[in-house]
Amino acid sequence: MSLREEALQLHQMNMGKLETVSKVQLQSPKDLSLAYSPGVAEPCKEIYEHPELVYDYTMKGNTVAVVTDGTAVLGLGNIGPEAALPVMEGKAVLFKSFAGVDAFPLCLGTTDVDKIVETVKLLEPTFGGVNLEDIASPNCFEIEERLKRETNIPVFHDDQHGTAIVTIAGLMNALKLTGRKIHEIKVVINGAGAAGIAIIKLLYHYGVRDIIMCDTKGAIYEGRPFGMNQLKEEVAKITNREGKKGSLKEVIQGTDVFIGVSAGGILSKEMVRSMNPDPIIFAMANPIPEIMPEDAKEAGAAVIGTGRSDYPNQVNNVLAFPGIFRGALDVRATIINEEMKQAAVEAIASLISDEQLSPDYVIPNPFDPRVAPYVARAVAKAAMETGVARRKVDPSNVHKKTKEIASIK
Amino acid sequence: MSLREEALQLHQMNMGKLETVSKVQLQSPKDLSLAYSPGVAEPCKEIYEHPELVYDYTMKGNTVAVVTDGTAVLGLGNIGPEAALPVMEGKAVLFKSFAGVDAFPLCLGTTDVDKIVETVKLLEPTFGGVNLEDIASPNCFEIEERLKRETNIPVFHDDQHGTAIVTIAGLMNALKLTGRKIHEIKVVINGAGAAGIAIIKLLYHYGVRDIIMCDTKGAIYEGRPFGMNQLKEEVAKITNREGKKGSLKEVIQGTDVFIGVSAGGILSKEMVRSMNPDPIIFAMANPIPEIMPEDAKEAGAAVIGTGRSDYPNQVNNVLAFPGIFRGALDVRATIINEEMKQAAVEAIASLISDEQLSPDYVIPNPFDPRVAPYVARAVAKAAMETGVARRKVDPSNVHKKTKEIASIK
Repeated sequence: MSLREEALQLHQMNMGKLETVSKVQLQSPKDLSLAYSPGVAEPCKEIYEHPELVYDYTMKGNTVAVVTDGTAVLGLGNIGPEAALPVMEGKAVLFKSFAGVDAFPLCLGTTDVDKIVETVKLLEPTFGGVNLEDIASPNCFEIEERLKRETNIPVFHDDQHGTAIVTIAGLMNALKLTGRKIHEIKVVINGAGAAGIAIIKLLYHYGVRDIIMCDTKGAIYEGRPFGMNQLKEEVAKITNREGKKGSLKEVIQGTDVFIGVSAGGILSKEMVRSMNPDPIIFAMANPIPEIMPEDAKEAGAAVIGTGRSDYPNQVNNVLAFPGIFRGALDVRATIINEEMKQAAVEAIASLISDEQLSPDYVIPNPFDPRVAPYVARAVAKAAMETGVARRKVDPSNVHKKTKEIASIK
Repeated sequence: MSLREEALQLHQMNMGKLETVSKVQLQSPKDLSLAYSPGVAEPCKEIYEHPELVYDYTMKGNTVAVVTDGTAVLGLGNIGPEAALPVMEGKAVLFKSFAGVDAFPLCLGTTDVDKIVETVKLLEPTFGGVNLEDIASPNCFEIEERLKRETNIPVFHDDQHGTAIVTIAGLMNALKLTGRKIHEIKVVINGAGAAGIAIIKLLYHYGVRDIIMCDTKGAIYEGRPFGMNQLKEEVAKITNREGKKGSLKEVIQGTDVFIGVSAGGILSKEMVRSMNPDPIIFAMANPIPEIMPEDAKEAGAAVIGTGRSDYPNQVNNVLAFPGIFRGALDVRATIINEEMKQAAVEAIASLISDEQLSPDYVIPNPFDPRVAPYVARAVAKAAMETGVARRKVDPSNVHKKTKEIASIK
């Protein structure tokens, strides 16, 4: 049976992938009187008197909404909210499997920014966090920014930050391996979508100042007279300080790092050869990378990462988002801030020891069981240190079973 | 430990009552490639091409949103969306336990009718149905009516219809027991809230024409110069044909049936004695009924029902909503229409045979395992017969495990 047939069968056999399940037993009138009327009135009254107790007595504190408008789903594009549901269910399943987070897909029947923002805000009472998913650029930026400002729960656009965090964790290790300092590197990023822009912002936080972003029309520079928009104008302000013009082929010469979040096959061996010695290549277009790892290696690349599971160094968001939300939820963070993202980068990178580090192992395996707890603890610690945690939790207790966590005050 | 302490402990220990769980295994890269990228693209593409396949490949077809604005929660009133969450989780747990329906609470941070309607409409892609819960009158009527018109999935306000369906099922049996014909009875309903109005509408469908509704100011009649609103004007049009005026005490004289959806203790023994011989009393105020069953019996009541689990004939919505949604979901109904509600009434009533029927047994026990499947099959059948089902299912296959249902086409 082909992958296609197997995938269809799996989804049809189960009518999707996610179900809701009771955490309490409900077999007798006594059970019913505690979980429902009249006993349920007691937690209701407590929460009414002390609103913060919603985190103690309800599912809110462990529950994340996976929100999409279906406009940028996988590589499929704008397929709409119904067709996006299998992906959102999958995401919810990953949240639970990797970090014990209860997640629920909400596929919205609108692409209007105001309506999406309003809807998510109205849903805030039920959720401890919001994972935005597969929302096209540039709407994704405004939606995330506004929700961060206008809600009191963590909001995280995974396509931006998840990808950026894992890429830069891998980059950290690749730099160590090739003996480079991060603030000295020259970087070219190909692809001006959500992920590319998030990568630039995070690199900037780490002191990288020599960055050029390319789109299909070549290098982006201030005042470029064609193919610009507000986002690219902003990108131009913090990148390409020398105002270089020209195609990817031209501006990649003499750089150290190529990061591709674009399209399959656009990076040639010749271009890799034009980079500085021992270049680092993250070619993350899926399913066909910007350059195949074999070719990049032949052209002299020292470290190669892709989005694929069948090559080393897979840049897989599952290394980031489960642990990030686990950590944020456990300390009841009000936001996921830059410090928490950086804590995640460093936690992921540090899981590979200097002895283990090799060109084929700069990013941990997605199934490495240490990842989510390690990320969660680092993120929780950063949240507490930066004052965005609603409660203190001993980091060693983060990412334990809900019950154990719940008893720490 | 008191009920209060036990209930609080149960809720805190588990951080609420509901969790989301994967229906598929996720242990290996292969599992990941089927449930998530790249395999998940296959059901996405199928649904994009054939939108109705969202029912085959996703959770939608088995998932109900439990929607509230927190304005009329239990007997607690307007306690807001956060404090309402324990009740909505409880409802979701009942959906799953009694009928295998996946339900998810959505507590909305607004009481604005337009915003509630808009929000639920935007969430339609994810859900196979909507259970409105604990939304105050009169907003609940407009919200339900508009959502029924403006969505293509079943929308059901349980506080109205669940209560009405179970009450009338009990009434049917009580009439049989006391030798009355339904279109001949005289009914007084005390309480002009959502449930009372739904009961009137359903009684009307069954041919009952002699109904008087009372509010705290007495009988409602056309042109009453005080305490009216649009709903009561409508009620006045289809009830109280003789235009009787006066208090409950006055208008209850010579009637056959008292239905209380009001406040504890308002019905006296004297009033019961003023009714026709062998009166039927449904005193559903909670936790204190309009009259205690002992007192009603002493005053000559032939059949007594309450909302309480510690007396016979409990009017418990759990007898209705799980089976109703199970039936509606299994045939992918686009609406829950009057015929489906009547099918539920008759299914519930018919579970008690003539031999079993007694004054203390006119309503099945909430834990009677026959109820939900029986209701589901009757509702599914009615949906198919009235042309609101998207697919045909052999009624004997309704309310089976999701997997089995899914295979019937």
